[in-house]
Amino acid sequence: MAFDVLIEKIAEKQNPTVVGLDPALELVPEFLKQKFYSEYGETPKGAAKAVLEWGKRLIDALYEEVPAVKPQLAFYEALGYNGVKTFYKIVEHAKSRGMYVIADAKRGDIGSTASAYATAFLGKIKVGNSGLSPFPADALTVNAYLGSDGVKPFIQECKTNDKGIFVLVKTSNPSSGELQDKQIGDNPVYEVMGDMVGDWGASLPGKYGYNGVGAVVGATYPEQIKTLRAKLPNTFFLVPGYGAQGGTAKDLSEAFDKNGLGAVVNSSRGIIAAYMKEKCPEEDFAEAAKREAVRMKNDLMSQIGEIKLP
Amino acid sequence: MAFDVLIEKIAEKQNPTVVGLDPALELVPEFLKQKFYSEYGETPKGAAKAVLEWGKRLIDALYEEVPAVKPQLAFYEALGYNGVKTFYKIVEHAKSRGMYVIADAKRGDIGSTASAYATAFLGKIKVGNSGLSPFPADALTVNAYLGSDGVKPFIQECKTNDKGIFVLVKTSNPSSGELQDKQIGDNPVYEVMGDMVGDWGASLPGKYGYNGVGAVVGATYPEQIKTLRAKLPNTFFLVPGYGAQGGTAKDLSEAFDKNGLGAVVNSSRGIIAAYMKEKCPEEDFAEAAKREAVRMKNDLMSQIGEIKLP
Repeated sequence: MAFDVLIEKIAEKQNPTVVGLDPALELVPEFLKQKFYSEYGETPKGAAKAVLEWGKRLIDALYEEVPAVKPQLAFYEALGYNGVKTFYKIVEHAKSRGMYVIADAKRGDIGSTASAYATAFLGKIKVGNSGLSPFPADALTVNAYLGSDGVKPFIQECKTNDKGIFVLVKTSNPSSGELQDKQIGDNPVYEVMGDMVGDWGASLPGKYGYNGVGAVVGATYPEQIKTLRAKLPNTFFLVPGYGAQGGTAKDLSEAFDKNGLGAVVNSSRGIIAAYMKEKCPEEDFAEAAKREAVRMKNDLMSQIGEIKLP
Repeated sequence: MAFDVLIEKIAEKQNPTVVGLDPALELVPEFLKQKFYSEYGETPKGAAKAVLEWGKRLIDALYEEVPAVKPQLAFYEALGYNGVKTFYKIVEHAKSRGMYVIADAKRGDIGSTASAYATAFLGKIKVGNSGLSPFPADALTVNAYLGSDGVKPFIQECKTNDKGIFVLVKTSNPSSGELQDKQIGDNPVYEVMGDMVGDWGASLPGKYGYNGVGAVVGATYPEQIKTLRAKLPNTFFLVPGYGAQGGTAKDLSEAFDKNGLGAVVNSSRGIIAAYMKEKCPEEDFAEAAKREAVRMKNDLMSQIGEIKLP
C-alpha cells in the first residue's frame, strides 16, 4: 500500500533517487535520431522511435542502481500521439526491469474528469467486459489548486489499485513563491496545501509510516523542506531541483527521517545528459548516465548514512 | 491575435458557447461502441475508434451553430495512446469544420517542461529540419500554481503562433474554495491569481479589447464572476459549470460586457448526453446535441441580447 513498494526498492538499492526521463530532443544522441530518421523520416514517428530506443537503453543501464524513473509527460506529448505511445512503452519497459514508475504529469481536474485521469495513469479502463491499464504507472504527480474535488478521485484509484500520488506543495522554480509563499493568516500557501496533503493522506496508510499521498517539495528551498518535514511526518516527498536547478545533497538532507527514509530525489538532465557534460562519445550516453547516477547516489548517501526499514 | 478569432466566430454565430467533447464511455451511444468493438474487439483501440466516430458526428451536427469545441484530454488519455490519437483527429476534424478548439488539459509545469507542453498543444515541434504541430489546438487551459515560470513559456508560444491560454482562476466545483477562497491579505487567492492573469495578458493584446491570457471562472459562483469581470476588463473568461453543474444563464450574465462579449460558456454533458435526457433513439444523438446547443444559445442570448464587435 501507499509508497511501500517504492520505499522497499529504495532500501534494497540504498539509493533514494529517481531519474527523470525527459526526452527533450536536443538531449537525445544524434546517432539515435539519425538511425530512426533515416528509417521513418524527420517525423514525429521517427523522433518517437528514437526516444523509445533512448529510454530503453537508459533503463537497461540504470535499473540495477536506481529504484525509480519519472518520465515527464510534456516531452512525450510534444511528439504527438506517437510520443504518447512511446511513453506507454517506456513505462512498460521500466516495469519489466523492476523499476518504480512515477508519471510526472501534474494532472488536476474535478469529478468525473479527475477520475478519468486517475484511470489513465493509475487504473483500468472498462471497455465492454475488458479492463485494461491505459498507462500502467505506479504513481502520478497531481496539481491540487482545485481542492479536494480534484484529489479524491485519485485517492479512490490509489486505494483500488495500490498506487500513490504526489501533490505539488512547494515547487523548485524561482517564481514558485508568487502564489505559494503568500501568507494565508499565519501560514504561507504551501503550508496550507501541505496541511491538506496530510489530511488527504490519512486515508491511505502505509506500513513504513508514510501514506500514499506524497508532496512535491523543491530541493532549492531547504528551509521549506525542514518546515514541511516537521509538519508532515507521514508524507513522503518527491524532491526535484537537485543538480541542474541548484539543490545540493546538504540542502535536502532535512527531507529524510532518522532511518534515511521520507523522500525520493529527482535528477533529470544531470543524469540523462551526463554524456554531454562528460564529453564522452555519445554512443556511451547510457553508461555516462549510470556513472552520474552512482555519483548522485553516493553524494546523497554521504549525508544520509544508511537507509533502514523501520 | 489573442482570442480575436474566437470572438469573431462568437459574433458571427451570435452564440457565446463552447461544447465540451468529453467522451466518458458511458455517454457514447451503444450502437457506435458495438460497431467498433465487433471490428477491433473490446479494446482501447475499439473504444478510441468509436469515440472518433462519435466526435466527428457531433462536430458535423454542431459546427453551423456553435463556434467552438473543448475536448477534455482526460477522457482521451483514459483510452491510452489510441485515445490520444483520437484526440488529435478530433482536433483536426473540428478545425476542418471551422471550429475554434480549446484543448482542456489544465497543464502546468516550469521552464523547458512548460515549453514542451506549449509545443504539444499550441506550437510546432522541430524534428530534424521539419516543423510539425503535435496537437493543433487554438487555445489551452493552464494551471498556474507554479507561478510565472509556469506560464511564460505558454505566452511565448501564443505570441509565436497566435494562440491563447485560459488560466484556472475560480473553478466551478464545490471544493474550489478550499484554497481559492482563502484570504491573502485583503484578497482571496482567486483574486490574487486573477491579478497575475491580468498582468500576464498585457503582453498579448487583442483588437477587441481582450488579450490572449484568459481566465477559467465557474458559472456556479456568480458573485466571483462579477468581481473578476470588474477587476479584469481585458480578460476573456472561459466559464464552465452551466447546466449539469447548476449554473444558469442569469448566474453568468455578469461575465459579459455591454457588447455581449467577454466570455465563452461551456456545456459538456448537457449537450453531448442530450439524447439520454430526451430519451430519443440513440442513433439521433448528434441531432439531440444540436437541439440542446440551440436551446442553450437561446437561453444565454435571452440575457445578453445581441453580440456586437466593438
